Amino acid sequence: MKKLINLPDNVVDEALAGMARAHADLIRVESPNIVVRKDAPRQGKVGVISGGGSGHEPMHGGFVGRGMLDAACPGAVFTSPVPDQMLAATQAVDGGAGVLHIVKNYTGDIMNFELAAELARAEGIDVEAVVIADDVAVKDSLYTAGRRGVGGTVLAEKIVGAAAEEGADLATVKALCEKVQDNVRSMGMALTSCTVPAAGKPTFDIGDDEMEIGIGIHGEPGRERRKLAPADEITEALATPILDDLPFQSGDRVLAFVNGMGGTPLLELYVVYRKLAEILDGRGVTIARSLVGNYITSLEMAGCSITLLKLDDELTRLWDAPVNTPALRWGV
Amino acid sequence: MKKLINLPDNVVDEALAGMARAHADLIRVESPNIVVRKDAPRQGKVGVISGGGSGHEPMHGGFVGRGMLDAACPGAVFTSPVPDQMLAATQAVDGGAGVLHIVKNYTGDIMNFELAAELARAEGIDVEAVVIADDVAVKDSLYTAGRRGVGGTVLAEKIVGAAAEEGADLATVKALCEKVQDNVRSMGMALTSCTVPAAGKPTFDIGDDEMEIGIGIHGEPGRERRKLAPADEITEALATPILDDLPFQSGDRVLAFVNGMGGTPLLELYVVYRKLAEILDGRGVTIARSLVGNYITSLEMAGCSITLLKLDDELTRLWDAPVNTPALRWGV
Repeated sequence: MKKLINLPDNVVDEALAGMARAHADLIRVESPNIVVRKDAPRQGKVGVISGGGSGHEPMHGGFVGRGMLDAACPGAVFTSPVPDQMLAATQAVDGGAGVLHIVKNYTGDIMNFELAAELARAEGIDVEAVVIADDVAVKDSLYTAGRRGVGGTVLAEKIVGAAAEEGADLATVKALCEKVQDNVRSMGMALTSCTVPAAGKPTFDIGDDEMEIGIGIHGEPGRERRKLAPADEITEALATPILDDLPFQSGDRVLAFVNGMGGTPLLELYVVYRKLAEILDGRGVTIARSLVGNYITSLEMAGCSITLLKLDDELTRLWDAPVNTPALRWGV
Repeated sequence: MKKLINLPDNVVDEALAGMARAHADLIRVESPNIVVRKDAPRQGKVGVISGGGSGHEPMHGGFVGRGMLDAACPGAVFTSPVPDQMLAATQAVDGGAGVLHIVKNYTGDIMNFELAAELARAEGIDVEAVVIADDVAVKDSLYTAGRRGVGGTVLAEKIVGAAAEEGADLATVKALCEKVQDNVRSMGMALTSCTVPAAGKPTFDIGDDEMEIGIGIHGEPGRERRKLAPADEITEALATPILDDLPFQSGDRVLAFVNGMGGTPLLELYVVYRKLAEILDGRGVTIARSLVGNYITSLEMAGCSITLLKLDDELTRLWDAPVNTPALRWGV
């Protein structure tokens, strides 16, 4: 295992300590391992929190700050955070207007967020939750009943965070998150596996001439194991099921998000984006906004995912709104 | 070779086409493969350009936009751009106030930028050049006489770009770039090699229990091949030569930049940042600004580099100034 770590068990704590130092102007890190917006709680503002296993950075801790998340709960690598973290985060960001939990659809995350929400409600905090389940690849998987929550989560956190920043109330923020979920679809693929530090060996085996189409963000299996193919063919294999699922139609305006799984050079992500743009052109779908880079990763896995979000004026305006987090920053 | 590409020979052209589509609000891509700020040339503004082999993305194309570069010249992967590109870029951004070439110290880049500068001067364009040579690892290497230009280049492009945006004249912009060069030092390391698409095999061999300390950004050898070590020890091995070289002293304020080589998860970069902050604390050096992420990469190489820039009020103010590029964006 070749990693820039010390003891495998300390990697998350040490990374959080590094984050806290690097972004002390934006965030603070508190026990039990929660990343909190520096100025939280903000009175009268709906708090927006998310969380999940570590190893997907910058998601979620890198999205804490003005105009996006109020807090994030990072679990151990590829392991759900515990309810104590979600409860602490909920308490830390509650400014009296309630708290929205944005939950990726993994069984552990769902259970623990539900428990934390109950505990928070027992303390009088108004909590709502929206589950993101945007992965069209598989219906059920090793970690999930139903569709997995993947790249759409990044877009939901940005858009919902913008609305909360503007002062929208909890019901409005929740409805907006559901609207994003209704309009976003994703699919990913892997060229290589990745190694969880505590495991010390790759999560799965894959041949030198193979790739996995429809993979999850923990290396869980996808739709099929195939022979390696050119980037254009891979892009088609991801874009077509996404486009057909919603479906996205001629005349639609979308946010096109090409995400790297961590170990794929940006150069290659742009090769994929180029083909994606061509496919969308061919279908009469207009790219109104785009995002290209490593935003929801699987450690050092090589591969990519594509996410399309159908935009309307409201979603576009909220996407464009100012954001100031370690990983997404504009307008400020 | 596992890559998201089509024909290896087309990877740079296709990636540039993708960039042009993804960032049409900021840049345009013109023949012969130059990335140009969308609104260039700007009358009366000093143009700032850079360039070098592809495979280091987001450097340099990702740094084209308001407050940073006016154009970038990407060569083939790990191969210097040709003088025609640098000349075309110089012409494209010349607004009558002259053009600064920021050149990383590699023999091919130096030669070709010099030739392009001569050709541009023959056309009446005022051209100056500053060579960035911030790598303390080795004196000479496979690609370079003298120190290599590495992470300091990112910081120089940001700071110099801000001054040019504010209307500084060519002599001022050049002097500022030299000031950055005088105050910046870097060193990098690799856990793995990387594969140039056209070569199809790793640039160098490295054992499963080995790492290369002092590596260049093309996989060229560094100071020494060592057994794998914990992140804290690696961070010490990079930070100590940097700190001792300038030297950075107690009371200094620095910009601390932990850069990923492409294949290392952000989680690990924060582990390195944490130790770096501890080392700087121990020496009485204050981190006034920071940057953590993949900014000058070597394709999918796993590893990192550390760059420290000694700040004064002028450099700090220009670092903070608005920037709007695909890879660095704030204040707008």
